[in-house]
Amino acid sequence: MEIFIIDEELTYFFKQSKLRSKVNEKLGLFCLELLIMKIDESNGTTNSNIVRELKRATTVNYVYEDEESKGKMKPLNGFVGPMLTDLYQITMAYSLWKNNRHEIPSVFDLYFRKSPFGGEFTVFAGLEEVIRFVNDFHYTKENLNHIREMIPECDEEFLEYLGKLDSSKVTLYAIKEGSVVFPRIPLLRVEGPMILCQLFETTLLCLINFASLVATNAARHRIAVGKDKVMLEFGLRRAQGPDGAMSASRYSYLGGADGTSNVLAYCFFGIPIRGTHAHSFVTSYSKSEELHDPTIKDKNGKVHNLLELAMQFRDELGYTTTIVSELVAFVAYARTFPNGLVALVDTYDTLASGVPNFLCVALALNKIGYKAVGIRLDSGDLSYLSKATRKMFKEVGEKYHLDYFAKFQIVASNDLNEPTIIALNRQGHEIDVFAIGTNLVTCQAQPALGCVYKLVEINGSPRIKLSHEANKITLPGRKEAYRLYGGEGHPLVDILISQNAADHEKQIPEVGKRVLCLHPFEEQKRVIVTPQKVEKLHHIVFQNGKPTIDLPSLEEIRNYCFDQISKIREDHLRNSNPTPYKVSITKELYDTLHNLWLQSVPIKEMK
Amino acid sequence: MEIFIIDEELTYFFKQSKLRSKVNEKLGLFCLELLIMKIDESNGTTNSNIVRELKRATTVNYVYEDEESKGKMKPLNGFVGPMLTDLYQITMAYSLWKNNRHEIPSVFDLYFRKSPFGGEFTVFAGLEEVIRFVNDFHYTKENLNHIREMIPECDEEFLEYLGKLDSSKVTLYAIKEGSVVFPRIPLLRVEGPMILCQLFETTLLCLINFASLVATNAARHRIAVGKDKVMLEFGLRRAQGPDGAMSASRYSYLGGADGTSNVLAYCFFGIPIRGTHAHSFVTSYSKSEELHDPTIKDKNGKVHNLLELAMQFRDELGYTTTIVSELVAFVAYARTFPNGLVALVDTYDTLASGVPNFLCVALALNKIGYKAVGIRLDSGDLSYLSKATRKMFKEVGEKYHLDYFAKFQIVASNDLNEPTIIALNRQGHEIDVFAIGTNLVTCQAQPALGCVYKLVEINGSPRIKLSHEANKITLPGRKEAYRLYGGEGHPLVDILISQNAADHEKQIPEVGKRVLCLHPFEEQKRVIVTPQKVEKLHHIVFQNGKPTIDLPSLEEIRNYCFDQISKIREDHLRNSNPTPYKVSITKELYDTLHNLWLQSVPIKEMK
Repeated sequence: MEIFIIDEELTYFFKQSKLRSKVNEKLGLFCLELLIMKIDESNGTTNSNIVRELKRATTVNYVYEDEESKGKMKPLNGFVGPMLTDLYQITMAYSLWKNNRHEIPSVFDLYFRKSPFGGEFTVFAGLEEVIRFVNDFHYTKENLNHIREMIPECDEEFLEYLGKLDSSKVTLYAIKEGSVVFPRIPLLRVEGPMILCQLFETTLLCLINFASLVATNAARHRIAVGKDKVMLEFGLRRAQGPDGAMSASRYSYLGGADGTSNVLAYCFFGIPIRGTHAHSFVTSYSKSEELHDPTIKDKNGKVHNLLELAMQFRDELGYTTTIVSELVAFVAYARTFPNGLVALVDTYDTLASGVPNFLCVALALNKIGYKAVGIRLDSGDLSYLSKATRKMFKEVGEKYHLDYFAKFQIVASNDLNEPTIIALNRQGHEIDVFAIGTNLVTCQAQPALGCVYKLVEINGSPRIKLSHEANKITLPGRKEAYRLYGGEGHPLVDILISQNAADHEKQIPEVGKRVLCLHPFEEQKRVIVTPQKVEKLHHIVFQNGKPTIDLPSLEEIRNYCFDQISKIREDHLRNSNPTPYKVSITKELYDTLHNLWLQSVPIKEMK
Repeated sequence: MEIFIIDEELTYFFKQSKLRSKVNEKLGLFCLELLIMKIDESNGTTNSNIVRELKRATTVNYVYEDEESKGKMKPLNGFVGPMLTDLYQITMAYSLWKNNRHEIPSVFDLYFRKSPFGGEFTVFAGLEEVIRFVNDFHYTKENLNHIREMIPECDEEFLEYLGKLDSSKVTLYAIKEGSVVFPRIPLLRVEGPMILCQLFETTLLCLINFASLVATNAARHRIAVGKDKVMLEFGLRRAQGPDGAMSASRYSYLGGADGTSNVLAYCFFGIPIRGTHAHSFVTSYSKSEELHDPTIKDKNGKVHNLLELAMQFRDELGYTTTIVSELVAFVAYARTFPNGLVALVDTYDTLASGVPNFLCVALALNKIGYKAVGIRLDSGDLSYLSKATRKMFKEVGEKYHLDYFAKFQIVASNDLNEPTIIALNRQGHEIDVFAIGTNLVTCQAQPALGCVYKLVEINGSPRIKLSHEANKITLPGRKEAYRLYGGEGHPLVDILISQNAADHEKQIPEVGKRVLCLHPFEEQKRVIVTPQKVEKLHHIVFQNGKPTIDLPSLEEIRNYCFDQISKIREDHLRNSNPTPYKVSITKELYDTLHNLWLQSVPIKEMK
């Protein structure tokens, strides 16, 4: 195995792992190789995790062939870099430079205006990749050659300037990844030279828009599925291209899924993996002679004829009209995974053939000391079929005094989405595992989240972007966000405070003190809140050229997300007619906003 | 620059390029380096193309660190490989192997059941990546380690078998990439050992589903936009992750777009690139003093004060209430790109400020020998605003006797999609360029195409997958597809012929001979066609371990797609209530299908 060692990356991994104490953070290449050899000897699991982490670090080597960036923590996706941007960011950068405006200190907010899927909450995701992108931001010589091709009139001096550009002057504020977030509260605030802030725009939007959309979609499906059921993401084949699939697996897990069918997502991100078999596996058998070897060994090594056993139960139970080739296929699969049989039962006829055949094989397995797992339904009326199947499980279980038969897992996987799951819950069902594909990974109900990235301050003075729609007007200036909690532990309101005001410290909400919260655009919408807990939402995540936080693992982000969702009042989360969560601003910010608004609108003359 | 040379890849490139004759296909590494140095000296363009092609070849190195696969043509996307699959493909493969069924010759069809977006046609795309994937298919040692982790009970012998597996026994039949295709006609037919065919499933679906969906979406938008207008893809920030964006740019161009805003798509695929500037560029200016240098040199090197000139025209035209800081921003941009100004005019007020300010700067540029390009509308009523803007262009053009002013480009970019473009066409508009974002790249109207991959033959005998819905039943056996053309050059019907029949050669349609075409499921739907031209749709693209065709360039595929669409009758293409295109089968195939169907359905007993 070739190993590309990237110090910072590895250091980060070791910091998080149990091996922390063994690691010198300034390890050189040679030491690392020794270390890996040492762990090799200890145990397999640890070793495989390390290999995975190394792999994550090496996924991007091809974009970064240049020497100067070696050793930096890089984006996990190889496409992510300064060239994954819109052309106009580069032409604007050139114009900023030409007009000597490139170094002006600027502040940009990244936020969305409306939660997706008609809901009133959003899960924030994609921050890790943003930090990695900002951390590694630089132009390679090859990048500069491409820019020269695209903008032939461009000054060589500008390209030289770009060649030296990095993120050392940028400060990034962010809400914690996995948080539940609401419209207008900036997810990210980017502070730094105008040119860099501008050059980040498209990439940051691309990284956060889809990640947050999928995480929110998964969270909504999770709520619909319920806590005690299993939810799997099975969308690889219908996702929007290979990376659409990889992002979907990663952020579906973050927001709510318990696992994925996507093998590469397991390899890269360590997401738990699940799968059964396909219709083709069943249809590939047409007669029992095609099973070249019907035998199986029990745990003591004794050989049994599994097919014969299953056929005996078929007679015994009077399942004489089931399709035999289907039973043969189940036996073939059970021979391979005697404790892992999840039979796909709808190839011919779910209740008349699939489920009876499964039961025959399950009884045969049981007889020699193995336990089948369950069945998968991939078509038809899932409510009716799952209930009828459960009934058959119970009847056969009772007949043979096998309690676990009643609890066989029923997996459903037929074009599931939030509304169908909610409808199934209403009709009643016996499904244990929901495997959700297309609708989860492509976010069919709304395939894009409309995050925007707006200039809110330049050279210390606040800026506003107007629009005919009040909802599209930006909130000017550097702002801090606080979440105010009520007595029952639920968040009540998020409030934005201008940091430009001289006395801004005084405006920070305090526990037990009354806070006046205003709607930014509708002056009659006001509320006074006395918080029982005050949470600061924005934290610095990148400054002075490096990340200022330890990047949490996917598992940690997921747990944080689940915890966050559990704190939100149910009426904000519900699927139909959810209550909007209050997002407000202080009186001071309200006045600044409205003064700036009036100043900026040209008064038309009518003659 | 580090160069990873991949012979086959480079050979392919050279084959396509003008340099063909200079290249020995068996070149070693050293020769290649010399060659590149030599071209370096000749001219810049050729060199940069070569660099790009090398880069495409190196995008995937990280997944393929193992030695044995060096020198193979690989997928362009680094995620694409045998691990980009569903777990059940690997568990099924294991079970096939355990039951000694893995080498059985099998045939799988990949097809869709319904064209997307409520339409009656689809553009087939994604084939190049499929061929690259199949060509490079193999498991690395690391892959095998991951499989061992995932399936701990799995035999070491099986892993050894997987380690030696490659595509040498697979034959791939495909329709030409860029073709217009219809439901049920296989896009791909995969023939080979059962285990390989099965292991390909998810990846092939993932590669073709989204590519074909986006290409079709682009083709539909192209039809709505019209041939004489420009259509750009501006969706990077709203796409489904970084690769969702890259695939979208690539296949949007294939199906209909003239260019993209995505810089990386230019770097990787050479797609023409376009862009203007953002609102933040305008709002970053608040007063004219912020323009540190208002001057510009004309082509003779003489210095002019561009801002002063523009302000003079502002007075002259009586545009006294426009926002000056906006005009300053346009001047700043025009100083940088004096022949490339496309001003974003809706920051404050399109008609009261943006367009007048643009005209002032355009007149100033004109006075010193430069020409502005146009404006971009990003909000409001695009029909009304574009017409009013055109009127102002004409009036000012006439006043100053400048004909080109009337033809300034009007770019529209506000949440455009097929229905809004069609509505705009009805209402009348003066838009020249449609820049389409979210709706094009995420395929908002239908974010997934439902391609499926079904076993149709095993060991020489046809197989069928049943369903309660006739539309979901597979057409059994190896089938060839022919397209029959009428006298006016339009395709009339596609027909599938079973290759299993002994006399199948006789069934191949011939020009001038009557052909009976049957609907596969509705026996009364029949038609007799006398074709004026017969086109065989399937060709072998991969056999004996290597591609059998030269991969066409993206440009060639795009031209082929445009040509194909021009041949389809307009009523099949139209947006509302399109006529379904006839997809039919022969009498022989009809009989095979229906016999097999009856055999496979268990007769239920009712008591």
